[in-house]
Amino acid sequence: MSKPYSRLDIANAAVLLVDHQAGLLSLVRDFNPDQFKNNVLALADLAAYFKLPTILTTSFENGPNGPLMPELKEMFPNAPFIPRPGQINAWDNEDFVKAVKATGRKQLIIAGIVTEVCVAFLALSALAEGFEVFVVTDASGTFNEITRDSSWNRMSEAGAQLVTWFAVACELHRDWRRDIEGLGALFAKHIPDYRNLMTSYSALKAANPLPKSVP
Amino acid sequence: MSKPYSRLDIANAAVLLVDHQAGLLSLVRDFNPDQFKNNVLALADLAAYFKLPTILTTSFENGPNGPLMPELKEMFPNAPFIPRPGQINAWDNEDFVKAVKATGRKQLIIAGIVTEVCVAFLALSALAEGFEVFVVTDASGTFNEITRDSSWNRMSEAGAQLVTWFAVACELHRDWRRDIEGLGALFAKHIPDYRNLMTSYSALKAANPLPKSVP
Amino acid sequence: MSKPYSRLDIANAAVLLVDHQAGLLSLVRDFNPDQFKNNVLALADLAAYFKLPTILTTSFENGPNGPLMPELKEMFPNAPFIPRPGQINAWDNEDFVKAVKATGRKQLIIAGIVTEVCVAFLALSALAEGFEVFVVTDASGTFNEITRDSSWNRMSEAGAQLVTWFAVACELHRDWRRDIEGLGALFAKHIPDYRNLMTSYSALKAANPLPKSVP
Amino acid sequence: MSKPYSRLDIANAAVLLVDHQAGLLSLVRDFNPDQFKNNVLALADLAAYFKLPTILTTSFENGPNGPLMPELKEMFPNAPFIPRPGQINAWDNEDFVKAVKATGRKQLIIAGIVTEVCVAFLALSALAEGFEVFVVTDASGTFNEITRDSSWNRMSEAGAQLVTWFAVACELHRDWRRDIEGLGALFAKHIPDYRNLMTSYSALKAANPLPKSVP
Amino acid sequence: MSKPYSRLDIANAAVLLVDHQAGLLSLVRDFNPDQFKNNVLALADLAAYFKLPTILTTSFENGPNGPLMPELKEMFPNAPFIPRPGQINAWDNEDFVKAVKATGRKQLIIAGIVTEVCVAFLALSALAEGFEVFVVTDASGTFNEITRDSSWNRMSEAGAQLVTWFAVACELHRDWRRDIEGLGALFAKHIPDYRNLMTSYSALKAANPLPKSVP
Amino acid sequence: MSKPYSRLDIANAAVLLVDHQAGLLSLVRDFNPDQFKNNVLALADLAAYFKLPTILTTSFENGPNGPLMPELKEMFPNAPFIPRPGQINAWDNEDFVKAVKATGRKQLIIAGIVTEVCVAFLALSALAEGFEVFVVTDASGTFNEITRDSSWNRMSEAGAQLVTWFAVACELHRDWRRDIEGLGALFAKHIPDYRNLMTSYSALKAANPLPKSVP
Amino acid sequence: MSKPYSRLDIANAAVLLVDHQAGLLSLVRDFNPDQFKNNVLALADLAAYFKLPTILTTSFENGPNGPLMPELKEMFPNAPFIPRPGQINAWDNEDFVKAVKATGRKQLIIAGIVTEVCVAFLALSALAEGFEVFVVTDASGTFNEITRDSSWNRMSEAGAQLVTWFAVACELHRDWRRDIEGLGALFAKHIPDYRNLMTSYSALKAANPLPKSVP
Amino acid sequence: MSKPYSRLDIANAAVLLVDHQAGLLSLVRDFNPDQFKNNVLALADLAAYFKLPTILTTSFENGPNGPLMPELKEMFPNAPFIPRPGQINAWDNEDFVKAVKATGRKQLIIAGIVTEVCVAFLALSALAEGFEVFVVTDASGTFNEITRDSSWNRMSEAGAQLVTWFAVACELHRDWRRDIEGLGALFAKHIPDYRNLMTSYSALKAANPLPKSVP
Repeated sequence: MSKPYSRLDIANAAVLLVDHQAGLLSLVRDFNPDQFKNNVLALADLAAYFKLPTILTTSFENGPNGPLMPELKEMFPNAPFIPRPGQINAWDNEDFVKAVKATGRKQLIIAGIVTEVCVAFLALSALAEGFEVFVVTDASGTFNEITRDSSWNRMSEAGAQLVTWFAVACELHRDWRRDIEGLGALFAKHIPDYRNLMTSYSALKAANPLPKSVP
Repeated sequence: MSKPYSRLDIANAAVLLVDHQAGLLSLVRDFNPDQFKNNVLALADLAAYFKLPTILTTSFENGPNGPLMPELKEMFPNAPFIPRPGQINAWDNEDFVKAVKATGRKQLIIAGIVTEVCVAFLALSALAEGFEVFVVTDASGTFNEITRDSSWNRMSEAGAQLVTWFAVACELHRDWRRDIEGLGALFAKHIPDYRNLMTSYSALKAANPLPKSVP
Repeated sequence: MSKPYSRLDIANAAVLLVDHQAGLLSLVRDFNPDQFKNNVLALADLAAYFKLPTILTTSFENGPNGPLMPELKEMFPNAPFIPRPGQINAWDNEDFVKAVKATGRKQLIIAGIVTEVCVAFLALSALAEGFEVFVVTDASGTFNEITRDSSWNRMSEAGAQLVTWFAVACELHRDWRRDIEGLGALFAKHIPDYRNLMTSYSALKAANPLPKSVP
Repeated sequence: MSKPYSRLDIANAAVLLVDHQAGLLSLVRDFNPDQFKNNVLALADLAAYFKLPTILTTSFENGPNGPLMPELKEMFPNAPFIPRPGQINAWDNEDFVKAVKATGRKQLIIAGIVTEVCVAFLALSALAEGFEVFVVTDASGTFNEITRDSSWNRMSEAGAQLVTWFAVACELHRDWRRDIEGLGALFAKHIPDYRNLMTSYSALKAANPLPKSVP
Repeated sequence: MSKPYSRLDIANAAVLLVDHQAGLLSLVRDFNPDQFKNNVLALADLAAYFKLPTILTTSFENGPNGPLMPELKEMFPNAPFIPRPGQINAWDNEDFVKAVKATGRKQLIIAGIVTEVCVAFLALSALAEGFEVFVVTDASGTFNEITRDSSWNRMSEAGAQLVTWFAVACELHRDWRRDIEGLGALFAKHIPDYRNLMTSYSALKAANPLPKSVP
Repeated sequence: MSKPYSRLDIANAAVLLVDHQAGLLSLVRDFNPDQFKNNVLALADLAAYFKLPTILTTSFENGPNGPLMPELKEMFPNAPFIPRPGQINAWDNEDFVKAVKATGRKQLIIAGIVTEVCVAFLALSALAEGFEVFVVTDASGTFNEITRDSSWNRMSEAGAQLVTWFAVACELHRDWRRDIEGLGALFAKHIPDYRNLMTSYSALKAANPLPKSVP
Repeated sequence: MSKPYSRLDIANAAVLLVDHQAGLLSLVRDFNPDQFKNNVLALADLAAYFKLPTILTTSFENGPNGPLMPELKEMFPNAPFIPRPGQINAWDNEDFVKAVKATGRKQLIIAGIVTEVCVAFLALSALAEGFEVFVVTDASGTFNEITRDSSWNRMSEAGAQLVTWFAVACELHRDWRRDIEGLGALFAKHIPDYRNLMTSYSALKAANPLPKSVP
Repeated sequence: MSKPYSRLDIANAAVLLVDHQAGLLSLVRDFNPDQFKNNVLALADLAAYFKLPTILTTSFENGPNGPLMPELKEMFPNAPFIPRPGQINAWDNEDFVKAVKATGRKQLIIAGIVTEVCVAFLALSALAEGFEVFVVTDASGTFNEITRDSSWNRMSEAGAQLVTWFAVACELHRDWRRDIEGLGALFAKHIPDYRNLMTSYSALKAANPLPKSVP
């Protein structure tokens, strides 16, 4: 327990988004759809906000699995995009591994559909090659809770750390003095309760302006 | 059972949005926040889409209850807006009742926070005055499921019809030939599963254009 | 309470299957998919078993809603099939109403997707015209439990009877002496627990044949 | 539906608290204990706040059922207190009925343990004698959800209205201009989320005093 | 609401136990098995305790449905026992109806497996013939909650009253002065929480005997 | 992973039952009471069946915690019984530790109330002294699921094995040829589904006796 | 974490199906029956599809436990089938161990009834002898969630990997280019959501044939 | 497993309360609000009762996050209070770390909002510096169960022990002979079920005074 806590680091982290495709989304039943869509977009937003290298991959976009969520394509127009010709585990695809290694990052933030396959296989392979793996549990979906629990167990036992998009954002940001407005806006967009706090606060501030002499 | 089914009618319906305020939203715990926010905005969107007369009311916006959800104010800049000076039941506020009656509509589509108070009291009063009342259950929130179930029972027993925003939209629209694109876009915006179907469909259509000779 | 109980009657009942389409099935989240698929097919099987007039209808099969479940088409090749050109409520479609009335039946057994729209609107319209309506709750699906509960309430208050496919089968059959094997096979196919009972029973009977002299 | 909505009225309502005894509380498993205790005390607090005639009754306090919750005895030292010598339905106890009738009130607000017995029997008897009955669902507890749902159904079908303590308070209060501080304090005491809103609001007001010229 | 509340009456009630058979019990999944077994036996025990006429019926005991729960046969050795040769609705069996009518009772307390068939059909038929019907919800089991909720709704809408075994016992008993020990023992046997109260109470009484002079 | 699996062994296991007292049972809310009582008695029955050394301990039986469940006292009249004068962790009580060590057993099967205190502290202390610890999760109860999950995690991380009473019985028994009737009866008594299987089987066997020539 | 990820390998894996018997299936209550049956058959189908050595074993088929699910017997007519004469842990049966070792495989994919006994004991024994163990969590069933969670913990702590049938299939297949149709058909048969995607896709392709010149 | 169990020790433990602020409390949705408020105050009460060094910290009290729960400020007027100017992980704040180290304690009892950020980051950092970390799971709240489960896993895998406020109190107290009344009162205040036991017990003792001659 005395080894230093290896935190997520903006300079050392990359984001891997695996198979968030329109058809596959209909398989995700361990989240309510509003919530899952919000979580995936929040993860994408934070990847963009922190300018993390981000890699997209899909499986058979032209078949029943359907195309990648359009928002993801729009948000990362220049990101490496690897449509896999058949490999289920993205780590079996040389181009994907090359793209990961090209980032020079050792901390991999992974999310995808479905958790126990496209996420877990990739996580296990990356761990085996010495990467630190952070699985974004709330941006990874699957058939049901039993499947989710099994796959969390398997990944955790292999050394992956289970995190959520909000934990990732906070661990990367570290200090609000870095920037309040940008991240605050991102949180307000994706956390309704947080937005409500800000709405009430702003309204009250507007109604009750600080006297000039107060700092 | 032989009396005709009195359907929601674009020409006869009005929407009453009661106390969807930033502070009060933190009391709503019978929905996950992503889902509830989506439902309220979907109801507002359909009110605008069908150009239904819409009335907004709040309770003490300058106090802890906080301001109305900003989106609602933006969407209905010209709607009657009645900040109640103290009446808990909006029907006790003369201006509110006047605004309702001024619409000339007899079908009232009601949603608000919290279900068993601001929604239920208004629903019961309007029923007592001969209006048809449609409670939008999924855009009305409260403390917990027990409270929700009690208040649904009370309103239903008094003659209110329990509906959801999607049922309201479909009952008003009646026939897709009236318009496909507009309502389709509204559904795609608020129902992720529906959007996924459309995304897959469009991609496939684009990839596989109909031969010219096919009808 | 003293009026006779109007039971489902093989000679007076018809089955209406509304919009069980491949795309729309992805919207159904108040059932686990294995269970829902099983329930719909069980209802279809019993309609065929009891030779009830059955009517199929769909909404935009060529669009994102997708085609009817293939099994339904195969099971009822000669049933009236009404693809609605736009009407959300099937009762607004003249051909559909004609097909219903052509059956001469007054008891309508209705199931579909989604419960609060395609099922509820049709149920309410049919009730208003004097039909008896039996909503098959477990072969009708929708977005979530809140929506389901709202729509059950609305239909029940309007006079619909809430039933399940198994209740429908038993109420139609009335007496096992009518036929044991056929209905038993249908139950074994769709109720795993029932099948297990039969498997154990048959194995034991085979191993322990009744002595000849026993009646 | 056109008869006026008969609202809870401070001048016409009485509160009946039935068997909230220390031993019987261990039978209540349809609420978490923190929540149930809070609900019962909130109902008692509002009865005191609105100065409603309140009647206490118990069943065998000296036996395993245990004594009344001490807070209730302390809050209503002068209320009629009827320890029933054996009657399960309090309405079978003449002293209890006399006490109820002595209040001159026709609206009975009832809560107790357990819901399907001490609450339901009393509710059904009072309804049968022409009283209006309001069952406080969240201050009435029982063994499990199945029991609760059954008993709610039975009482509702007999004409009882299902309400919660918060709905009762709001329906009695009607207009915040009657008094803000007292009821606000009661709500803050019993609704943590509400208290949080007030805490944040007050802190911000204190930090940002209104300029003098603002009303 | 002003008609007298028709209570369960020892002199006017009979108990009908329908198809609590060993095989069919494996279909019951809306209760945990410990709880369901306990509820059925509690209902049987109270029927015996109050000496209510009790009628047993089964469906194909020699087939996969299996024999009646042995306890029921033992407890009611002289009760009318009607093995139905095929009728699903027990009311369709002349012997059963004769047995019911022979009791001279008008209040029928019904429980069985499965709720939406053997219980509901019987309840609906008996209601139609003018009996009062009390469905014991927690001694009636079925496949899942959706089925249960549907069938409760159907029976309730037709006029059945939903009760639990404990409510039945209390409503029949009315006054503890009738007998404390017998019913107390029955409750202690079937309600562990109640038994715990009694155990603690008795131990304490034993340790702290009342001084002689106290009444 | 290559070390042999250290199984529960009749010759090496002892059972420690901690604070299953009538008052404390009312704190247990992570089980339904029927189920929990059944599990505790099943564990006691198996301890007796396998003749495992069994040790009972309580905390302040004469105070609010109440006496030990009477069945436990009756089943183990000669077992060491250590009423602790104050120690919360039974391992802090010398007499208890002596009794444990006197058994000569190294596998401790522990259950009690509440899980995170009386069970967990004892488990952690025993592990620290080199015992193998098997926590019977379904005969140990506590306030709620969150508490249970926390304490399971803590004990598991410290090396305790999580088992249930049924797993304990089967792991000790190893081979049904040791005895079928005794253990079968124990299972039938505590597992209603198992009993149903046996009831059906026996009835069928009785009705269909094996021809003599069959082995 | 730097050791290579030891994946499931078609050439090194075997499937052990333990006690999926008709009677024992009635004990499984941590899955809905439709879902569990589907999962077991899906696992069997994939074992056949990948031609994995498969071993069947049962416990007392002629007694109350009942015969093996008939589908399993039909699918693996030539598989080693070991009816255990009494051993609860299949690893205690020499024939079973011999059959396992005869496969020459080191990766054991295990599923059965009930999870904490027949699956867990076998898994722990096999781990102790140096096999890699993959427990198929969704094809293994037991009494309730508490039991399941306990046993997952025990097996995972001992080194077993928790997987689901779908993860097993994908990990074995590795690359869709190996075969699309066969595995696609298997998935469509056992995952209704997947089948729906394929139905919609195929219909659309049929309606919109690719122009000839497109690759 | 043979190393001694390092227990919580009054002389070696400190309590860190992180960001229990009025605004942030509205984000906590993995507890019902009554329960969570009770848990936080119970933890504070026990910190005071055992006179543990306690450190308070907040994040932007003047902004939307709102002020610390007023009770906490009142209970610990002299505790180190570190409003962090921006650091999300309190361990990044030098003053906070200094305050922790100034206590000289090595066992840190941590609770806060939200679990996966303010609690987890601090826990991971403190573990890395060699402290023993006890996370009070029921006084730490966050958005939902998925987030909670992920963060528990991450902290547990890093060596944190998961405890609840009640376990902390009992582990610190060790022996009731240290003091019964004080801790008993604390438990009665925060555990309604416990209070009920004490109420019944006291009433019975008062009614049945011990004869003088009894010890």
